[in-house]
Amino acid sequence: MANDKIKWIRDWLYMKIAVVGGTGDCGQGFIKRWAGEHEIVIGSRKADKAEAAAAELTRFLKSRGIDSRIKGMDNAAAIEASDLVVLSVPYNFVESMTSNLRESYGDQIVISPVVPMARVGRHFEYTPPAQGSAALLARDLLPPSVRVVAAFHTISYAAFQELDLTLGGDVLIVGDDPEAKEVVADLVRVVKDLRPLDGGPLELAAQVEGLTPLLLNIGRLNKIKNAGINVVSC
Amino acid sequence: MANDKIKWIRDWLYMKIAVVGGTGDCGQGFIKRWAGEHEIVIGSRKADKAEAAAAELTRFLKSRGIDSRIKGMDNAAAIEASDLVVLSVPYNFVESMTSNLRESYGDQIVISPVVPMARVGRHFEYTPPAQGSAALLARDLLPPSVRVVAAFHTISYAAFQELDLTLGGDVLIVGDDPEAKEVVADLVRVVKDLRPLDGGPLELAAQVEGLTPLLLNIGRLNKIKNAGINVVSC
Repeated sequence: MANDKIKWIRDWLYMKIAVVGGTGDCGQGFIKRWAGEHEIVIGSRKADKAEAAAAELTRFLKSRGIDSRIKGMDNAAAIEASDLVVLSVPYNFVESMTSNLRESYGDQIVISPVVPMARVGRHFEYTPPAQGSAALLARDLLPPSVRVVAAFHTISYAAFQELDLTLGGDVLIVGDDPEAKEVVADLVRVVKDLRPLDGGPLELAAQVEGLTPLLLNIGRLNKIKNAGINVVSC
Repeated sequence: MANDKIKWIRDWLYMKIAVVGGTGDCGQGFIKRWAGEHEIVIGSRKADKAEAAAAELTRFLKSRGIDSRIKGMDNAAAIEASDLVVLSVPYNFVESMTSNLRESYGDQIVISPVVPMARVGRHFEYTPPAQGSAALLARDLLPPSVRVVAAFHTISYAAFQELDLTLGGDVLIVGDDPEAKEVVADLVRVVKDLRPLDGGPLELAAQVEGLTPLLLNIGRLNKIKNAGINVVSC
């Protein structure tokens, strides 16, 4: 009886998180850092590829003593099965991951860590679409019932997926729905030493997306590995 | 003889720094933090206002045990007399401080801490001109012999002018001339605990200018006083 109740509470606290593009490099960090706390559904264009990635990540996490519940599905099924979707894809896939899969979305929270940027010479520049940012493009293409939150632009993907690394840095969160932003802030807090900060409404997503090319340039020019930011007070 | 040599070295190490708009709030920090190391020329539209500000700041610094050499002049004379010019003016004065005074400039280094931004509702947004940034606008309007460096966008002016505050934060420096950037980096190092970081060429000035509205928003939303940034490594 007591055990049942604990199980029920655990099930309730679990979220089902779809990581679309979860077989790519960018998705690994989200899965590895969250799989101990939440159920993960890896989405890919091919279900078998997603299933293979799920099996491999389950084994990897087991070897680290982390019990996980990770499934693999095609993107449409992954989105339909989830409470929250991470758009873990390069910018040029945002349109296909939103408009083409529009019918799979209901009232999920969608996290966009996406950054439109280009290499110009030796530097990265922010190259937002006409909507102003990748997050606003995603919002325009998704059903209005979906709550888009932009976050995780200042965390190096390379560092994010290395579970042994303690990530010291701030994650700036922008979005229009306070509850959705708080859910995302909790997902930031799951990762020890990361601090969530409110960056304002989704209209300001360009401000945080633009930090990625800035940090890539500063990291290279000043030899700072996996550069992130801390907002400090004077 | 020995004293003469020391005086010669000191004179040589001194730069003459014009702070145009130096009678305003924004200029106070630059003058107070640098006056112990360099000669300051406060520029204003009216010479007598600049002279009064120079006298007042000299007295203030003296009361803090800091010997200074501060003069006040009209903007044209201040620029002509200086090795380095700080455009310590609101964005809408950049054009008058550059194109109208174009003939006063020679081969100075010009520091632009200027940020074009607007308040939209409760938030600040970056509103760059067609050139892409205030720094690029200034470069376009100034003689090609002037070396424009953009910096000091992430330091709160309120904190900058409080000499008792130790400023923990990074100053991102963008510009096309390595020597000019190094001179500005040294001016950052004069202020204890501030760290200069190379942000790349002037073409990327929008990346650093945009940090000001971002930090103003984050500071207010997360109750972080005088928000600045540290670039950290994971």
